[in-house]
Amino acid sequence: MAGKETSDKFKKLGLKVIDDIEKRQNPNIDIPIRALSNIIFDKKTGQLGLGNKSSKRYFFNVAHSKKFMQTLMVAAYSKGLIDEQIHTSIRDMYYALKRTLPDTNENTVDEQSETDPLIVDIEVALDIIREQMHLTTDRKGIVAGNVIIKDRGDSIDWSKLGSGGWSIPSTVEEIDFKKVEADYVVVVEKNAGFERLHEDKFWQKQNCVIIGTGGQASRGTRLLIQRLNQEHKLPVYVLTDADSYGWYIYSVIKSGSMSLAHISERIATPEAKFIGLTISDIYDYDLKKCIIKAKEVDIKRAKELLKYDWFKNNKKWCKEINLMVEKGVKAEIEALSNRGIRFITDEYLPEKIKKKDFLD
Amino acid sequence: MAGKETSDKFKKLGLKVIDDIEKRQNPNIDIPIRALSNIIFDKKTGQLGLGNKSSKRYFFNVAHSKKFMQTLMVAAYSKGLIDEQIHTSIRDMYYALKRTLPDTNENTVDEQSETDPLIVDIEVALDIIREQMHLTTDRKGIVAGNVIIKDRGDSIDWSKLGSGGWSIPSTVEEIDFKKVEADYVVVVEKNAGFERLHEDKFWQKQNCVIIGTGGQASRGTRLLIQRLNQEHKLPVYVLTDADSYGWYIYSVIKSGSMSLAHISERIATPEAKFIGLTISDIYDYDLKKCIIKAKEVDIKRAKELLKYDWFKNNKKWCKEINLMVEKGVKAEIEALSNRGIRFITDEYLPEKIKKKDFLD
Repeated sequence: MAGKETSDKFKKLGLKVIDDIEKRQNPNIDIPIRALSNIIFDKKTGQLGLGNKSSKRYFFNVAHSKKFMQTLMVAAYSKGLIDEQIHTSIRDMYYALKRTLPDTNENTVDEQSETDPLIVDIEVALDIIREQMHLTTDRKGIVAGNVIIKDRGDSIDWSKLGSGGWSIPSTVEEIDFKKVEADYVVVVEKNAGFERLHEDKFWQKQNCVIIGTGGQASRGTRLLIQRLNQEHKLPVYVLTDADSYGWYIYSVIKSGSMSLAHISERIATPEAKFIGLTISDIYDYDLKKCIIKAKEVDIKRAKELLKYDWFKNNKKWCKEINLMVEKGVKAEIEALSNRGIRFITDEYLPEKIKKKDFLD
Repeated sequence: MAGKETSDKFKKLGLKVIDDIEKRQNPNIDIPIRALSNIIFDKKTGQLGLGNKSSKRYFFNVAHSKKFMQTLMVAAYSKGLIDEQIHTSIRDMYYALKRTLPDTNENTVDEQSETDPLIVDIEVALDIIREQMHLTTDRKGIVAGNVIIKDRGDSIDWSKLGSGGWSIPSTVEEIDFKKVEADYVVVVEKNAGFERLHEDKFWQKQNCVIIGTGGQASRGTRLLIQRLNQEHKLPVYVLTDADSYGWYIYSVIKSGSMSLAHISERIATPEAKFIGLTISDIYDYDLKKCIIKAKEVDIKRAKELLKYDWFKNNKKWCKEINLMVEKGVKAEIEALSNRGIRFITDEYLPEKIKKKDFLD
């Protein structure tokens, strides 16, 4: 059965609690700490991760008791989803768990803000990811290219989807890659950029895969990028606006985010490279007419990026970010259209890839 | 050539301006007025539309001159897109048109906010829609079901896309329907709802098409809904949260929006029906535990809805909206999960459809 390993982890958790009870010990669950004090950046893997501090959640502890119950409810519900082979959203789960305890006015849960952190607690405690708990996250992202996958019994050819593309579901753990003939993956921050590449059949001419994230990449999209990179050895090139927000989108794909530090290695792609836009591009490609004045918040964010380990230890990145701060400018992917609609697909991307003009 | 008709309209516009010049008249373009004063609700068609007030934009008029030039630039650019058979986003077009006039410090355009309204001016002046101008809008929306389409030479079977679905492009004008065997279309406001219906293969069991809009439906999605309804006579049932925002999503699919009143008949689906959630559902389906207290802004918005012609002239809608205002409550689609994960696909939707329990 798919998911048996995860289901067994839940079973083990349950048996452990029963064992505590039988031994007349205070039933408890051991949960790694996710505060900043326990988040570390691993230079070797290039990823954010958790240290080894943890704390215990007890049943017989007035401050823990309700949370202890809720944690077991979430675990039991999730195990049920796996065993029944169905998925649901975290919001649906919250509603499903909501009930009034018999003979009281007390609800099991009152707000989704109570169950959400418990999901993460379980992720770190059992070393699994939400997708394995059969909990879906919001889907976003589109893909097209020379790849055939098998998913829920269907064979899907990403090169035969017309002007549409395959809508990336929230869980891509279970898809099988049947044929991957592409040479690399281009990830574009914007849907408009995806449409441009798609209409020009960039993936066909260049034999690659194109992915549109529509802003910050969803978990499903990040996992798909990782799988294409790790299982099929495809280089990944990320294209975003030349601003702090775009660069952070790249950073999250590559190294993970603070809030999901505990699962970086499960969904990040440390080998991803940044193809553009850089501030230097504005001058190298004569886009000065399309400069946008950076706002105060952009500059502030850029200065924050300079403190991130993976930016501050990289000379090229420091140069680009400092350039933005000094000149107070930014630019968008669409600025390339000033040089002609097909400039991005005919010249900008092929040239950068040929010259290996990337930032790490 | 696809788009020849639109291209010809642009040509005619150009010839008219040349004619003005040759006759030594002040070159001008006639543009219908889009202000509230000229927006009317057509009770017969159930759609918002424009009245017949218009105004002229002159070349020799200091207040009009720049706008006149920009209007012709947008028209010329768009004609070029059609003739070359390529598409681009409105942001790309803005950048493409941006240049400094020779021997001046004056730019053709400085901000996108200058070109965006001109697109709409041209839409109303030439009675075309943005999609026909080959300008794309942000894509959003997913579809699955018993339909096969042909698009850009590919044959795409919406029933064979695994857990993904077909990502609806921003322009669906050019897709051909090859096989439409579905009995109706269910449109779901939320991606999580789409995933639930999709995983349960609701479209297969019920022989229908399911569409997820991911919030307010994009233009491409609205056009697709209209085409399925008008060309293939499929009834359309819209499922949203029981709150003013969800109901407005329905209203826009059905009757168009104020800001796009001039193209309502091109993308709205007056025959669409509302399947839920209603405030009555909360009580009829025993979802009281999942009630959310409505905020002041929800109530305010609900009261505004009561002023819309298509709500205020409908008894059932008045009852529901007033119920919300009186009780100060709302509820989400996910609340149905309180009755079991598959309650929505096994009971709620089939029962409503069987009983024809809709709001118009």
